[in-house]
Amino acid sequence: MALVHCTIRIQTTGDCDVHDVTEEVEEQVSVSPVKCGVVTVSVPGSTAAVTTCEFEPGMVRDLKAIFEELVPRARDWAHNRTWGDANGHSHLRASLVGPSLSLPIIDGQVSRGRWQQIVVIDFDNRPRDRTVDVLILGE
Amino acid sequence: MALVHCTIRIQTTGDCDVHDVTEEVEEQVSVSPVKCGVVTVSVPGSTAAVTTCEFEPGMVRDLKAIFEELVPRARDWAHNRTWGDANGHSHLRASLVGPSLSLPIIDGQVSRGRWQQIVVIDFDNRPRDRTVDVLILGE
Amino acid sequence: MALVHCTIRIQTTGDCDVHDVTEEVEEQVSVSPVKCGVVTVSVPGSTAAVTTCEFEPGMVRDLKAIFEELVPRARDWAHNRTWGDANGHSHLRASLVGPSLSLPIIDGQVSRGRWQQIVVIDFDNRPRDRTVDVLILGE
Repeated sequence: MALVHCTIRIQTTGDCDVHDVTEEVEEQVSVSPVKCGVVTVSVPGSTAAVTTCEFEPGMVRDLKAIFEELVPRARDWAHNRTWGDANGHSHLRASLVGPSLSLPIIDGQVSRGRWQQIVVIDFDNRPRDRTVDVLILGE
Repeated sequence: MALVHCTIRIQTTGDCDVHDVTEEVEEQVSVSPVKCGVVTVSVPGSTAAVTTCEFEPGMVRDLKAIFEELVPRARDWAHNRTWGDANGHSHLRASLVGPSLSLPIIDGQVSRGRWQQIVVIDFDNRPRDRTVDVLILGE
Repeated sequence: MALVHCTIRIQTTGDCDVHDVTEEVEEQVSVSPVKCGVVTVSVPGSTAAVTTCEFEPGMVRDLKAIFEELVPRARDWAHNRTWGDANGHSHLRASLVGPSLSLPIIDGQVSRGRWQQIVVIDFDNRPRDRTVDVLILGE
């Protein structure tokens, strides 16, 4: 059984920036010795999330629209009042989606659909440098 | 440490079809040598998701209702405009819930509540054949 | 490769009670032999969920508010009608967030942000005793 950890550095613009990390994750899987196992992709921090989507401009626009509708930015969130912050909505959106994702590795490849990309969504209200963890486990 | 991969084939009706895969997953765990570990259940594709719920007809109806309310089908989603598709809502719902689930295996059994089933939800706007990955890792 | 399973017992008040389990999870990781790997935190049951958030009173209030807005308690849910229950909303919220979370362990520590705590949210409509599974896998 092998275990490989690596990181991906990304610079986001914040404000529901959807960042495709599929190529970097798959590059790490392909250079690892793991042919069958699990890859966990995780973004430390309480205002970003990891999920999958079809990464195309229309869908990115739709994601921004639906998150603004479900969890609006311009609300008197208690988090903002307490801390003088303006990113209460960012925290809530991140908690809803979740900070990590685990996908199977089969025959040396991440098992995903052709139109399904692994994305980090940065919900924070400002640009951020993010370090994404990639943990590959298997044999 | 042992590693077992298998797949479950399901045919869905689409339109928020909630499909219980608990029995198939647990059958695979029980015939595997793993008594303690993790099982990852994942559905490749950007319009389906994996989560748990109490699988009973009322709850299935409630799930359809809440997803239609939170992410309505009949909206002018940018994804639809760009690609001439009609499943923008399917993609958004799938990204919200997420495409995979990892649960502990304890004493040879998937650790879940009595009324908690593992379900694949197909949000696509048409029937689909889906291949669900089951990855069992432990000892 | 090492594999450690342990449990955390919590008593919740229900009604979207947000319970910080970070300290207990990290204590278990620190006494385990695992320096690099994955920790899976999971709550059996169909009315509770695991995610991360900044655990502070304002955010806890915001989480209660947003879940009440997205999935209201006082609705004629089919689950309630069928079973004479009053926790249809609890089930739906739990399915949305998901019952488990996997985070990387790097250099012997759970990889998370400074303001990011691991939380169990009990959506049930009454106090519950919950047993949370912690599964540590790595080397």
